[in-house]
Amino acid sequence: MSSHLLNKLLTGDRIALSRAITLVESRLMEHQAEANALLDQCMQLDRSPAMRVAVSGAPGVGKSTSIEALGREIITAGKRLAVLAVDPSSVVSGGSVLGDKTRMQYLSTHPAAFVRPSPSGSTSGGVADRTREAVLLCEAAGFDVIIVETVGVGQSEIQVRQMVDILLLLIAPGGGDEVQGIKRGILELADVVMINKCDGDLTKAATETRTHYTHALRLLRGADDMPDVMMASALTGSGIPEAWQTLVARFMEMENSDTLRTLRNRQDRAWFDERSAGMLLRRMQVHPAIAAQISTCQKRIAAQEMSVRSALATLESVLENILQDKMP
Amino acid sequence: MSSHLLNKLLTGDRIALSRAITLVESRLMEHQAEANALLDQCMQLDRSPAMRVAVSGAPGVGKSTSIEALGREIITAGKRLAVLAVDPSSVVSGGSVLGDKTRMQYLSTHPAAFVRPSPSGSTSGGVADRTREAVLLCEAAGFDVIIVETVGVGQSEIQVRQMVDILLLLIAPGGGDEVQGIKRGILELADVVMINKCDGDLTKAATETRTHYTHALRLLRGADDMPDVMMASALTGSGIPEAWQTLVARFMEMENSDTLRTLRNRQDRAWFDERSAGMLLRRMQVHPAIAAQISTCQKRIAAQEMSVRSALATLESVLENILQDKMP
Repeated sequence: MSSHLLNKLLTGDRIALSRAITLVESRLMEHQAEANALLDQCMQLDRSPAMRVAVSGAPGVGKSTSIEALGREIITAGKRLAVLAVDPSSVVSGGSVLGDKTRMQYLSTHPAAFVRPSPSGSTSGGVADRTREAVLLCEAAGFDVIIVETVGVGQSEIQVRQMVDILLLLIAPGGGDEVQGIKRGILELADVVMINKCDGDLTKAATETRTHYTHALRLLRGADDMPDVMMASALTGSGIPEAWQTLVARFMEMENSDTLRTLRNRQDRAWFDERSAGMLLRRMQVHPAIAAQISTCQKRIAAQEMSVRSALATLESVLENILQDKMP
Repeated sequence: MSSHLLNKLLTGDRIALSRAITLVESRLMEHQAEANALLDQCMQLDRSPAMRVAVSGAPGVGKSTSIEALGREIITAGKRLAVLAVDPSSVVSGGSVLGDKTRMQYLSTHPAAFVRPSPSGSTSGGVADRTREAVLLCEAAGFDVIIVETVGVGQSEIQVRQMVDILLLLIAPGGGDEVQGIKRGILELADVVMINKCDGDLTKAATETRTHYTHALRLLRGADDMPDVMMASALTGSGIPEAWQTLVARFMEMENSDTLRTLRNRQDRAWFDERSAGMLLRRMQVHPAIAAQISTCQKRIAAQEMSVRSALATLESVLENILQDKMP
């Protein structure tokens, strides 16, 4: 059945893609082997890479509208677009899961587009893993552009940055305090910054915001590492073709210079290294003898009975005992 | 001998303090038990806490001169001051190790002061651990103020922030691009920002820099989380008494409100958690079977033969085998 699913997936069938994503999102034990095999097969495909773009920004900045507007541009250019939402808040509230389809009416009904809400993983790391795997599946299904939509708060941006080629940050017009709404670190990660809502009464504020952010970005990143800063209105469509062309130009440059290949190799490696380290550590921390000793150490340190260094020494000897027990 | 050393240390003897720091910095196996015991004893002391201050800033900003100037103020106020340098560059070049004493001529010869160069640990984590332990020893020796001097670049700032009560960031007058010289993150960690070299020809530039940084800090941290921003000249001494009074006021507020106790407990806990996690992980990553499997996974991922998820599954089963081998 996995090979059947893969074959359907390779034809670009959206129902097969949906089923494949559901399979890799499944936490049921009996689905794991099949999901792993499917992902291995997708990994081995020799397809031309899709453009992977993260669209990030604070709530209310107009992410859905902007993705719709960019999506029209992309589809008009004859490309197929997949949109994956990574919304940490949906993990908790389930809020936007139902809303995703209605938020992007044009894309969710267009045959050249595929829209998928956020996976309901329990941790942001889990959501990131599942989204990353969904990106692989969309690429296997032959989508030309994959947009990962994410709220610009919390740890998720760094994770999302690690799964895409280009990060597009949306900013709403307004005073400097607006920066508070987004995680500061994302200003350092963005490749393209788009001031949205540059229309009507907000035009003047948007121009000021551009100046403001250009200044802040230069301060943070220096002249050599400046992202593109653009103005657009997803509502009127002004600036959207230019934003799309900027993304295309960036992507083509990466593809032609082999930067893309290097970047993706580095991302895969970093993903494995991070997850394997996390897995090894978590597994050891729940080992009964280790867990007991950690708890003892924490209590004795809090009571000022023991220095951190002594505590570490006792923990290390517990670990050595565990590992030596089973040596021949 | 450890008990003799401890007794001498408790009298405030600077030679005993030097020897105690050398003991905890030692990497010789035979010193570890004694060092651990000494640190445990210092941990158990019921002394009134010293003010622990980090002084950070890019090379050339005038850290040594500022510490000298603050030191005069501190000693004039009848307090005893210890200065510990954490210079990641000295790990590599050994550059400033010899220079430390000559950089602070007044303090290095004054009986109420103690100046100690950076420990020559091989990793910045090692340097941070040894410095943290040296802080404990200085406190046991009854020093009232402990300044940890650190270059404002790299990972070290976050580590240093975790071992002090207050972070004083020094900034030199100049254009916005100066921010590049220091790690951006430190702007988020500083409690007090002191624009130094506010004298002679630089007075105007210093005033502009204050405006500039006040703006950038408000943008980064918001109005509720603003550090004190001060102007001073370590050369002429102007602004130095005010800087010292700001530190005193901050520290007294922390001490009176129990924030200090909470902060230090949290720091100790975080230190143990971080180091124990690092130790567990490193120890597992060098386990022969784990190391071999990690290497296989990395190669197969790079060759696009295997998905990250499948690779993790194979590594996890190797780990389970290791842990189950030794179950009864």
